[in-house]
Amino acid sequence: MTHLTTTPTIAPVVPSTGRLRPLGLDEVRIDDGFWAERQRVNGANTLPHIESKLESEGWLPNFDLAAAGTLPAGRRGREFSDSEVYKYLEALAWEIGRSEDPALDERFRAVVARVAAAQEPDGYLNTMFGRAGQDERWSQLEWGHELYCLGHLFQAAVARGRTRPTADDGLFDIALRAADLVCREFGEQGRHAICGHAEVEVGLAELGRFTGDRRYLDQAALFVARHGEHTLRDIEFGRSYYQDDIPVRDAEALRGHAVRANYLASAATDVAVETGDAELLRALRRQWDRTVDRRTYITGGQGAHHSDEAFGGDWELPPDRAYSETCASIGSIMFSWRLLLASGDTRYADLIERTLFNVVATSPAPDGRSFYYANTLHQRTPAQPADRDATSPRASSSLRAAWFDVSCCPPNVARTLASLAGYFATADDDGVQLHQYATGSVRTVLSDGTVSAFRVSTGYPEGGRVRVTVAEDGEWTLTLRVPSWAAGATVRVGEEEPTDAAPGTVSIRRAFRAGDTVELDLPVAPRITAPDPRVDAVRGCVAIERGPEVLALESVDFGDDIAEAVLDPASTPVDADGRISVRVSNRSTGEESEVALIRYHDWALRGPSTMRVWLPTS
Amino acid sequence: MTHLTTTPTIAPVVPSTGRLRPLGLDEVRIDDGFWAERQRVNGANTLPHIESKLESEGWLPNFDLAAAGTLPAGRRGREFSDSEVYKYLEALAWEIGRSEDPALDERFRAVVARVAAAQEPDGYLNTMFGRAGQDERWSQLEWGHELYCLGHLFQAAVARGRTRPTADDGLFDIALRAADLVCREFGEQGRHAICGHAEVEVGLAELGRFTGDRRYLDQAALFVARHGEHTLRDIEFGRSYYQDDIPVRDAEALRGHAVRANYLASAATDVAVETGDAELLRALRRQWDRTVDRRTYITGGQGAHHSDEAFGGDWELPPDRAYSETCASIGSIMFSWRLLLASGDTRYADLIERTLFNVVATSPAPDGRSFYYANTLHQRTPAQPADRDATSPRASSSLRAAWFDVSCCPPNVARTLASLAGYFATADDDGVQLHQYATGSVRTVLSDGTVSAFRVSTGYPEGGRVRVTVAEDGEWTLTLRVPSWAAGATVRVGEEEPTDAAPGTVSIRRAFRAGDTVELDLPVAPRITAPDPRVDAVRGCVAIERGPEVLALESVDFGDDIAEAVLDPASTPVDADGRISVRVSNRSTGEESEVALIRYHDWALRGPSTMRVWLPTS
Repeated sequence: MTHLTTTPTIAPVVPSTGRLRPLGLDEVRIDDGFWAERQRVNGANTLPHIESKLESEGWLPNFDLAAAGTLPAGRRGREFSDSEVYKYLEALAWEIGRSEDPALDERFRAVVARVAAAQEPDGYLNTMFGRAGQDERWSQLEWGHELYCLGHLFQAAVARGRTRPTADDGLFDIALRAADLVCREFGEQGRHAICGHAEVEVGLAELGRFTGDRRYLDQAALFVARHGEHTLRDIEFGRSYYQDDIPVRDAEALRGHAVRANYLASAATDVAVETGDAELLRALRRQWDRTVDRRTYITGGQGAHHSDEAFGGDWELPPDRAYSETCASIGSIMFSWRLLLASGDTRYADLIERTLFNVVATSPAPDGRSFYYANTLHQRTPAQPADRDATSPRASSSLRAAWFDVSCCPPNVARTLASLAGYFATADDDGVQLHQYATGSVRTVLSDGTVSAFRVSTGYPEGGRVRVTVAEDGEWTLTLRVPSWAAGATVRVGEEEPTDAAPGTVSIRRAFRAGDTVELDLPVAPRITAPDPRVDAVRGCVAIERGPEVLALESVDFGDDIAEAVLDPASTPVDADGRISVRVSNRSTGEESEVALIRYHDWALRGPSTMRVWLPTS
Repeated sequence: MTHLTTTPTIAPVVPSTGRLRPLGLDEVRIDDGFWAERQRVNGANTLPHIESKLESEGWLPNFDLAAAGTLPAGRRGREFSDSEVYKYLEALAWEIGRSEDPALDERFRAVVARVAAAQEPDGYLNTMFGRAGQDERWSQLEWGHELYCLGHLFQAAVARGRTRPTADDGLFDIALRAADLVCREFGEQGRHAICGHAEVEVGLAELGRFTGDRRYLDQAALFVARHGEHTLRDIEFGRSYYQDDIPVRDAEALRGHAVRANYLASAATDVAVETGDAELLRALRRQWDRTVDRRTYITGGQGAHHSDEAFGGDWELPPDRAYSETCASIGSIMFSWRLLLASGDTRYADLIERTLFNVVATSPAPDGRSFYYANTLHQRTPAQPADRDATSPRASSSLRAAWFDVSCCPPNVARTLASLAGYFATADDDGVQLHQYATGSVRTVLSDGTVSAFRVSTGYPEGGRVRVTVAEDGEWTLTLRVPSWAAGATVRVGEEEPTDAAPGTVSIRRAFRAGDTVELDLPVAPRITAPDPRVDAVRGCVAIERGPEVLALESVDFGDDIAEAVLDPASTPVDADGRISVRVSNRSTGEESEVALIRYHDWALRGPSTMRVWLPTS
């Protein structure tokens, strides 16, 4: 269908066409439970934390130096530090849209003013390049991240434009001037080149969608198509690192740097959808299938290599060296969400849920002031307790850190949590599809003018019951996702008898009356998951899951070196009011005991520990 | 015992004291078989190949630019490229001692003349630092490798001094001037600092042994003692990367960068032996035990991480991401050999054998003109065929490469192969200990004047019979190592009945007459090796070994994706004249077949392939 909506959708991704239309932040509200609490902490703690770090690390002051004309002297941070400021602005924009807090708007404007002052008259904007004493503009496309930074600027501007279309802070104009420069420099007649880190493509595509200006989308399509033409130098990790080894449409799976790969695949999906390129879309769906089948951790995490932050080959999923970068999981959600909108296939929502609960929710500490960058599935040695407020030089730290030398993940988590409602529900001509479950409300107007409005009440993921209460009269179809793990689910309409709801979706079409209820019951009893036998690194092991959450064994509960732990293969996990335990023996002492498991996203909250998701059964 | 020999020993490591005295290249000759062929190729092909690369990559011309005073303009190569020239000189020096080829001596002198011309008046020698437009001397101790380079210079000078004590090429004086500078700069009264890559310590220690000048040994001891004092900056990988996290004597195992760790442990052994520091020696032996038990691959390879080329934690031994750098294995041999000389414990020789056959022999191609840098135990995707002569940007390439941007391994292999006879046999007051087996001859004079002289004939490792034929009359003890894998070995003196020889050593004391024979029979039938159950990455797998050689399954023989291969756990490997096969089923098709295994060191000789050492049994 082609989306015709009266008001612009307030969401990160708004395709002009596709199977499903995303609902925006004004249409979906999350107001209690697991995600509401994380959104609250994100707004109250994480956003101020990020701004204070951007200030103290010098990444925001870099813009002041640029405006003062004193660069390169005093510039701090890596070549991509500008992008963290833009991701922060994007997060702030969504948070403003979500929370309506006027104080936030002041902060937003103050940061934008500093960015604005640094822009060159021709639209160029980067604190690292182009001045006397700096490398020339666009001279370091492999590692310079200039276009990457601009991609994040564009996403921030779109977020602002969608949440505050009449704002006069100027961010949108800054973005347009920069985007116009990109189109001049890198258009059909310009440099035949790409950026070593995909991101500008997805920014341009969304800018094109929001403005309706075809040039931006065309430029995104050009950049996507140039991947695989070897315009970037060969490097130690090979050109697959930046997906310049083969054309996007020829690839069999995501490969190379996992963040780059997902950002590019997201942009390629945008291009395929907007240009009606069905062949490219099919190729991307095939790549997603293979990547999820063979190159994705049980947590949804992606990226098996530390050295190049990259996907390994098929079946190469070492839990102890899982890189599983937080940003890669956000990229994976971006990619899956776009495929879900294009195709309506619920498996994409399954992966989004898995990734949200087990990577995105794992990264920030409960207070939102420290983060995982990498998300290992097996920690062999307890991490050294670090200064709570220190910047970690180690992306792969095994304790959450307040900030990193490469600090892409914290603002990426922040923008994702602030815009999370934009990934929860969709509509088509018939009704509304609810993909993720949280207590809150949904209200949208369907293409024929029917109002679909309802409350959702649930204790998810602790409990598996999701109760939908219709808020306004109207005939439409309610579609609920039944996760692939939820065999035995049932759905009950009002006081009718519950009926089976097989994994996939369950749809109820009714002339609903306000107060009507639909109850979905998802069995969340703990279950044992065996890996594919081709995943060498976890052969002879199983994992325990409960609902959408992956569980883990932590040394604090086992009381000894977890290398000694062997799961009794005959025992079944015990669920006592959500507290799960399993029967574990000690390899060396032979001692057997009932040991509590934790939610993986809660690991290392009790101090340095060792931990494993996959438990050997012999 | 304290070693008193009439002539200096011509070997890389000559402690002044210890349980065993190494025999030199003039005392041990290898003249046929597995290692003789590799030594021949090393001299005929590898050494000229290295020199031509040092020339074409600019690493040798850097010295000419230094002499001309035109640096830094035109300097090529990484910060440690000088060291490759020194390692080449060391290899050449040993090769001259081994082969007595006068043409080699010309080449040696020509290179030394170019190095000599680059030395500063005060003894400083490095093409990367200290000139206008370069960083200051010693200002980049973390990554600058200045002292590291000099350590290799010292080892080269010692090799030259031992093989050609009267040579007038000047290398020895160059080394002494540089060593004196190091002692002035970094002595008790100088900079309290260390180099980010251990190596100068082992060079200084051997220089002290060779010259008898205690200052060099004292300086080595100072550098060893300063490790763990945090004089180097914390970095992404942590200070353990360069063993500056804790003092050497407090460590429990080798850790951090595997080459650095082994070089430092070797130097610490030298210091412990020469200073009579029994506590330090015990600490090093404990570290070796734990490292070999828990952090060493079945091939002898060390280093489980690509990102930091480092040891992982205990039991962290992923075969597919094994870094197992060739240089780390050479460092491991250096460390083990020093502990063997100090203690006489034959387990050190076991590891040396395992490492020689399965890492050192794996790196160079049969023609000696391409090399592995990393030595994975499991290749999942076939490597791209590369230009045979190209420099690889990828240390972790899965095909042998002619040269690398970081090309430490080829000259390291070359110096090891050229001096290999120096690691084969030792003497004590009673007789001779033969640690490694190859066809050749041994002749030495024991401390009481007794001549111990014999021929060794063997088809090792293809065959397990080693025949020793005494060459001169004399009463002494012949000690033969019985490898730990050789259960069921027997030894037979002359025509006597064979007797059992348990793993460890077997000793025969006789008033030998020329022509007397001793025959050791080592059973080399293929055997199945199960891993320690705590090694997660190979749970549910076994490896097949035969004698000292590890075997592997290669896709060329399996004929399908090796991810599909499952070893029939009930079948036993068949050995048809040294050609081994096993019963393998295909996971997807269910098809069973008898599939040939290869020697691991022979993998990828038939073109790009996939390969695995550890075979799943389910």
